[in-house]
Amino acid sequence: MKTLIVALGGNALIKFGEEGTTEEQFRNLRVPISQIAKLARDYNIIITHGNGPQVGNLLLQQEATAFISKSPLQILVAETQGQIGFMIESTLDEELMKIGLDQEKLFLTVLTYVEVDPEDPAFKNPTKPVGPAYPVRTKLGQIKTAKGWRRVVPSPEPIKIYQWREIKKLMELGSWIVIACGGGGIPVIKEGNNLYGVEAVIDKDLASAKLGEQIKADILLIATDVEKVALNYGKYNEKLLEKLSVSEAEEYLKEGQFPAGSMGPKVKAIINFLKSGGKQAMITSIDKIKQALNLKAGTHFFY
Amino acid sequence: MKTLIVALGGNALIKFGEEGTTEEQFRNLRVPISQIAKLARDYNIIITHGNGPQVGNLLLQQEATAFISKSPLQILVAETQGQIGFMIESTLDEELMKIGLDQEKLFLTVLTYVEVDPEDPAFKNPTKPVGPAYPVRTKLGQIKTAKGWRRVVPSPEPIKIYQWREIKKLMELGSWIVIACGGGGIPVIKEGNNLYGVEAVIDKDLASAKLGEQIKADILLIATDVEKVALNYGKYNEKLLEKLSVSEAEEYLKEGQFPAGSMGPKVKAIINFLKSGGKQAMITSIDKIKQALNLKAGTHFFY
Repeated sequence: MKTLIVALGGNALIKFGEEGTTEEQFRNLRVPISQIAKLARDYNIIITHGNGPQVGNLLLQQEATAFISKSPLQILVAETQGQIGFMIESTLDEELMKIGLDQEKLFLTVLTYVEVDPEDPAFKNPTKPVGPAYPVRTKLGQIKTAKGWRRVVPSPEPIKIYQWREIKKLMELGSWIVIACGGGGIPVIKEGNNLYGVEAVIDKDLASAKLGEQIKADILLIATDVEKVALNYGKYNEKLLEKLSVSEAEEYLKEGQFPAGSMGPKVKAIINFLKSGGKQAMITSIDKIKQALNLKAGTHFFY
Repeated sequence: MKTLIVALGGNALIKFGEEGTTEEQFRNLRVPISQIAKLARDYNIIITHGNGPQVGNLLLQQEATAFISKSPLQILVAETQGQIGFMIESTLDEELMKIGLDQEKLFLTVLTYVEVDPEDPAFKNPTKPVGPAYPVRTKLGQIKTAKGWRRVVPSPEPIKIYQWREIKKLMELGSWIVIACGGGGIPVIKEGNNLYGVEAVIDKDLASAKLGEQIKADILLIATDVEKVALNYGKYNEKLLEKLSVSEAEEYLKEGQFPAGSMGPKVKAIINFLKSGGKQAMITSIDKIKQALNLKAGTHFFY
């Protein structure tokens, strides 16, 4: 069976305009997870996911509590892996039960930490939006995004997913579904025999592509808000793309067609994945995961 | 190789009187984890751990933040599995590197959820202390413990560790180290094909014993504050125990020798484990894990 990585965007958990209650997140997850459960008959699957709103909320909560020791950002990322991993896994468990696959499949959520370079320029130039969007600027360190003013944190490139050996082994065994790379992974730097967590949030699509490269996954599917990647997004001459070569994608990236806060890292992740040996890659919406794998939806990339 | 479950008590992370900063927790973990890394040559190991202070802090933090949607207690338990699991795993990783075992061994932290009975009497009678201890009562719903006044939450009995099949499979493969059952596991109830999280914290020793029963582990080692279990603890006629049969332990439990908030659930966990087929079980201090396995420290139980 082919190994498929499905990277779930933030809207798989919290839709635009929602408060992001636990109930809402569980309800929203049903859409992608019910599709993924059915795909488990035909693929070895790894589910990855973001954590932007969740990690931002944890940051706000601990700032509001003066008398409790604060955790650094990487520890909060680890917390979101627990929180979101549980929501995804228990929903998956239910969906596998419904189709009688829960006993046949083995599935785990694994904590994932990821090596980054302490000299990564991202540490001097934070760009990753986390937490809620405000209609007006409420603090220093916020930038304006399509959704409003949001806090930004450094987002260094993933160099190595530490748990790649374990995940590769599980994929080789067959019949496993793994939830990994939550929130892009917990960022660490390595110095000799020491691992130090660093305050950053890694892009989950870039981390997914890196994992795909390390374990030689076959397919990377990035599930997001839109069914297809567009040129001139939101303009009168918007053009939806069904297919895109890696060299075209690189050209459009350079032209600024895919902005840093949204489609940019997704396209970059796909390029990295295909250039490092991945066989198939696509971007589509959360509700079209199955169709996209059948080539009936999404933007498909080729090398 | 024999399968060994090491259950780490709260003091493996935060010592009495400490604030519980991330730095302190990493420093404290070095003591048990450096021993466990060395044991990995001779045993298949599962590390479990508590989360009382950590989950209590998360509760306080979200109470302090009015404008952010609050997560139910089970989600906070999931968060502590991420937080503490990362601290344990990255420390283990470092210790395995130091002794050249990091490439030979495969190791993962796995999210764990645990079935409980919605009719468990614990839901009507909360007894599990979480969060910081205060010198005086600061809120309703607190009880007085040896350390001070603490909040209490329901602590139902674990019925089934959901991830037991996966953990058993990894143990059968050999050369795996697994971190699991963090904070006693995320409590869920099952109704038909649905899993519902419930607001509770499961005792981590009882969960460890249940996991041991399900995967047929050989040894359960509970690491805590004291090197040996005592009769008449803290009194003039205190007596340290080197050996204890299951029937003696049951007798002493009935007599009230082992109180509910501290030694009680540990002894109960050991009894459950040995009665369900476990071969060897012991209680010792965090710094004597290796010696206890060599029968040179700790209280050893037999059936």
